[in-house]
Parts: sequence; structure tokens; C-alpha cells
Amino acid sequence: MIYADYNGSSPLLPEVSEYLTKRIHSHLFANPNAIHSMGQKINMGIEKCREMISQVVGCHPDQIIFNSGSSEGIANIFHSILNLKDQTKKKIIISPIEHAAVMNAALYYKEEWAYELIFTPITEDGVIDTKKVEELILKNQTELAMICIMSANNESGVIQPIDKIVPLAQKFNIPFFSDTTQTIGKHAFHFEKSGVDYAVVSSHKLGALVGAGFIIAKNPVTIKSLVFGGGQERGLRGGTQNYLGIETMAIALKIFSERTSQLLQLKLARENFEQEIKKLCPEVVIFGEKADRLAGTTLLSFPGIHGQAVQIELESHDIFATTSAACSDNQPETSKVLLSMGVPDDIGRGVIRLSLSFSQGQKEYSSLAHALKSAYTKLSKIKSY
Amino acid sequence: MIYADYNGSSPLLPEVSEYLTKRIHSHLFANPNAIHSMGQKINMGIEKCREMISQVVGCHPDQIIFNSGSSEGIANIFHSILNLKDQTKKKIIISPIEHAAVMNAALYYKEEWAYELIFTPITEDGVIDTKKVEELILKNQTELAMICIMSANNESGVIQPIDKIVPLAQKFNIPFFSDTTQTIGKHAFHFEKSGVDYAVVSSHKLGALVGAGFIIAKNPVTIKSLVFGGGQERGLRGGTQNYLGIETMAIALKIFSERTSQLLQLKLARENFEQEIKKLCPEVVIFGEKADRLAGTTLLSFPGIHGQAVQIELESHDIFATTSAACSDNQPETSKVLLSMGVPDDIGRGVIRLSLSFSQGQKEYSSLAHALKSAYTKLSKIKSY
Repeated sequence: MIYADYNGSSPLLPEVSEYLTKRIHSHLFANPNAIHSMGQKINMGIEKCREMISQVVGCHPDQIIFNSGSSEGIANIFHSILNLKDQTKKKIIISPIEHAAVMNAALYYKEEWAYELIFTPITEDGVIDTKKVEELILKNQTELAMICIMSANNESGVIQPIDKIVPLAQKFNIPFFSDTTQTIGKHAFHFEKSGVDYAVVSSHKLGALVGAGFIIAKNPVTIKSLVFGGGQERGLRGGTQNYLGIETMAIALKIFSERTSQLLQLKLARENFEQEIKKLCPEVVIFGEKADRLAGTTLLSFPGIHGQAVQIELESHDIFATTSAACSDNQPETSKVLLSMGVPDDIGRGVIRLSLSFSQGQKEYSSLAHALKSAYTKLSKIKSY
Repeated sequence: MIYADYNGSSPLLPEVSEYLTKRIHSHLFANPNAIHSMGQKINMGIEKCREMISQVVGCHPDQIIFNSGSSEGIANIFHSILNLKDQTKKKIIISPIEHAAVMNAALYYKEEWAYELIFTPITEDGVIDTKKVEELILKNQTELAMICIMSANNESGVIQPIDKIVPLAQKFNIPFFSDTTQTIGKHAFHFEKSGVDYAVVSSHKLGALVGAGFIIAKNPVTIKSLVFGGGQERGLRGGTQNYLGIETMAIALKIFSERTSQLLQLKLARENFEQEIKKLCPEVVIFGEKADRLAGTTLLSFPGIHGQAVQIELESHDIFATTSAACSDNQPETSKVLLSMGVPDDIGRGVIRLSLSFSQGQKEYSSLAHALKSAYTKLSKIKSY
């Protein structure tokens, strides 16, 4: 079996499974806010995890606010910046390739709070056009409430050059939020060096237990509670902390930090794989081919062959991949990300996403190439559209 | 070891631990929204759990909206009812003994949205005064945006007679939210029969994995997204579903439903225990003594002996209890719940909460009585205030 949907969700890392197996039988379960020693032990564990995580992601422990994952983190960041009675700046620069969790938050503030969304142009390689974004910032700088550009796209894997934009945002004191769900724990990322004001993480993308995550905030007091609860996380995010989620995130991020060197091998294996597929089918489209991408992500299309047909063929080879982002998998039309890149519908409908992790490499890509070859040979005879 | 802090958080039920041990090694981890068969299997599992849970809590499966727990559920319900531009009704009837997660949400809407909070009177037994609440409803009915009364108090365990209030709320179409965090999975509760419009659940109070929960909404379309995400939970709560949390909640609630008969034994054991403590120390105060309470909750005070001193003594007997709600444990003053009941400070500071589960009974209460006797004998000689 090859799991090739890491951008959708990661299975538990073996180290996390091993930890959990023991942890479940430790009988140490309690409310981390209780005064008895069981509660205090768990609470100290949370703080140790915060420290461990802060070292991997390059921030101060106090800049981490644990929550239930990126979707909550995104909603909370928008709420913190935009749901303010004295917010007079009413424009948001946002990339059109943001994940639905970001786009839906932005649309809510457009519709209910009258914010204006200014979309950044995207090159055909799926990269934000930094020159044009700079122009947009200069033109609107006194009116910008925030800038919102993801660090890597979940569909194409294309890494966005936010480092080129951040200095200008900083110059004008415009809050910069980058959805880092696809980079933290998967790609080199250092919060402090990135210069962004807000970043988010989901545990299930890291190989930790599903249902946890955190915000990293340069200035945590700017976070306005979305979930009130009983004053947990220094009053910034209420609710009993998901300590098992937090413990497993610390383990997963530590494992990642010890294995970042494997990312280069993964990338080389992916590049070889893509060359092989191009030999097999010269008309194949690899989205963001010339751009810097996440080491293990390939978004490709065999024009005229429906992505879902390829996905089903791959599954008959025990390979699990998707046609697009999980949230839009059930929609047969071309994704908004691809539309932003100017992809026509006959190519957009043929899309299949293969996303691997640092624990995979040459072996998995050989199997993927073999299975894709078989799928292509079969399906190209009976083109579906 | 006796764990006596079930109102704070429940350890994993043995059946949940057993399930998880196998589940972790099943290798079935994926995004439930992915189109491949792993995602679909998990998704079908979620729907099966929704069905199982709906049977235990007495609602339609579609009325369940999974989230990260009660604190989020509470914030989401307040947001749904109160964060509306066309909400012209600006008064809320709320009990003063609500959990901090509810009270902090209410205070936010008071401060930022100009809602007026009308507090219900509380009897000295910790019960809402239903006659006076009825008067308040009649007096303010055209201006009431919501009524908010918990089903059982987390500190005293006192069950609130919401069934006496609900018909009047229904008559005037006033949304009724009851914080059921301490009752669902711990006490008989049937959503439909209760007549309330909204209820909430936290997984970690049930003996399931920490970090999950759900809202039950009579009319789910009245829920306004707080966490946008990618359209999960029929667009009502975005974010990849915490499927392991959901699976364990279904198991925990099923176990509870099979063992509700044990609650009566637990209650009898608690009553015997309280009689024994009263013989030991006739001046002991048992809060809500004459009221209907959760089967396993006793909130008591030895006047003049600090609750924390008792807690530490209990811990030396390997008994884990708290002085109050987890969230306010670090505050040495009398809790707001006790102040509402008219408890003076010399009694309020002596409080210790013992909260057991349906899996405990006579044996645990005998050990508790023994340990409390020893603590009282020791501490009454050196009264701390």
C-alpha cells in the first residue's frame, strides 16, 4: 500500500503510534487545569511540548496558542484582525489560491463586515506575482487591514515567495497572515525569520493525532478569543487543552526536524518520477513545474482523461491519492487554484494529486510511475471526455 | 488510586483504551473528505458514530454538529444567536452559576454587543428559582434573545429544573440553550424530550479522547459557522473532522447507555458516604444537599479548614480531587457558584469537590470516607483560618 495523500492528511507517524500505545495505558488522564498532581503533570507536559515545538518552528513558546487545528486558527486570526469596532482599514490583499478555510473566512468578512478583497495575480506556474503584489500594497497601503498569502499551496505544492512581500508589509505595519498548514512539519519554516505575524498548524497534517493545532502569533495579545472557555492558553483560547494532541504534535515535529535532510532525497526522487511520466506521456501537464514546490507534491493532468478515473486505477494498485484538495474532491469542475493559474477545463478535469512525505522516496515513486503508466495505457484508449 | 475528579475530566474508559490500542495499529488514517476508499471508510465511520450518538442522546443524526468540545460549542451557539445584524432582542436570561465558558461568552456579548444579562435567582441549595425565572420571562419576553441555563452544575452537581422553564420559552419562541456538558454521558438526558434548542458535549468528560465534542441543535440551520474551514459538517463547522475523537465518543456514550442502571447504585453509595461524613463532622456543609444532584458529585466544606489542605491530604491517600472547577482552582476565593448560593467566605474557602463516575461506587466511597476522616482529624487540630 502506498499512501499518497499527505497534503490531505498524514497517517500517524510510527513514533507517534508507539508513543500513543504506551500513553493510553499510562492512566495519566486528567484536566490539565486541575490542582491535583495528575493535572499538574499533564500541564507541565503541555508546557514542555510548547517549548519543544517552539524550537522546531522558530518562535518563542509564548507565541504558540494551542487550538483544534488550522481551520479554527484561521477563523481566529481573521476574527482578531477584522472583528474590531475600531478597524477603519477595510481592504485585504489575498491570494486567489488560498485553501477554502481561508477563502471562506475572507468571504464572510467581505459579506458581513464589508471588507474588500483584493486578489493577487498568479502566474501560470501557480506563484503569486510578487511585483504586482508590491504594487497593490503601495497603492492601498493606508487602507489595508491585512495581507493573506499561504506559504505553500495544498493542491500544486507551489511554495509562495512570501519573503519577498513581508518586508513591504512590515514597512507599512500591515498584519501578514500566512497559512502554513502545508509547510510547518513538511518543509523548512522558521517563524521568526519568515517575518509573518500569524501562522497556523494542523496536527493531522504532521502525523500527530487529528483534532489539534496551534496559532503562532508574533504578538499574542493581538489574538482575540474566538472560543472563550475558562481562561486557558493565557486567556487567548479557552477549553480544556487537547493534551494528547499537543503531546503527539511535539513528537511529530521533533521527528520532522531530525529528518529534514530526507526532503532533498524526496525532491530528487519526485523530479525523476516527473521526468519518467513526461517520457510516458509527453502531453502530461505538471502544474507549477518550473516553480519551487513542496518536496513530495506533484499535481498532474493527462489531458482528456478524467482525474477520478486515474485515481480509481491507482487505487486498484493499492495507491491512495486524490484528484484535488479533499474539500473539493466531490466537485467535478476545475479547482479555483487551477482557474487562477489559467488552466483550461479539459486539463483541469484531468487532475490527480500525488503528495508524499519525508518518510517516502524512490521506492514509492517507482511504484507510482509503474501504476500511472498502467493507468495511462488503459485509460488513454478510452478517453473519458 | 482513586480518581475523584470526573466533573473536571474523565480518564479514558477501559473500552475506549482497548479500542484505541487496536485503532492506532489499523493504519486507517486519512482525510474523511478524500475521495479514495480510505477517506470514504473513515467518513462512513463518522456517519455511523453520528447515528449511534443520536440514539443515546435522543436526537436526529442531522442535529449533531461535531466540533472540538463544549467551549467551542458554547461560543458557536452564542455567535449563532447573538452575532446577527438583525437581532433586535437584546436581553439574555442566564443563571449566575454557569460554567466560565458560558459566562465568558455572555460577558463578551454584553461588552461588545450591548446585550443585557438578566441573572436568575438561585436558592441556597444551588437550584434556579423557577418561579422567579418564569416571572423574568413573562416580564421580558418580547426582548429576550435567549435563555441560558445549564442542565447540571459542574461544582455542586445540582441538576437544574430546566424542564420547568422550557415550556414558557417555547411558548414565546425564545431560543433555549442548556450547557449539558455535565449531564450527557453522566446522567439521563434526552435531547428531544428536554425541549431545549441547543446542547453541547465535550469528549473528555465522557471518557473519550480529549479534543472533540458536538453541538446538538434542534434546528441545525440556525447554526452560523464560527470555524469556516472547507464546508465540513454540512457547512456548519469547517475543519477536518476529529474522527478518532468522534469514534471514541460513540463508544463512550454507548457504554454509558448500557450502564445507566449503575447510576442509582452510585447515588445510594454517595448518600451513605455523605451521612457518614456528617457523623464524623456535624458542621460539615454539603452544598445542594437537599437538591437533586448528579449521582456521583459531592461538594462539601469543613468550615475553617482550607479546601486545598484537604485536597493535599486526600492526595497523600492516592485520591485525586479538586477544590472547585478546574478553571478556578488556582483562585483561593469562594467560587461564583457558591456566592450565588449565598455561601459565606469561611465556608466557601473550605470547599472540596468529589466527583465519581458510574464505573465507581461503594468501594471508592468507603476509601474516600476513610481518607476524609483522617484528613479531618489531622487538619481540625490546626485550622488554617
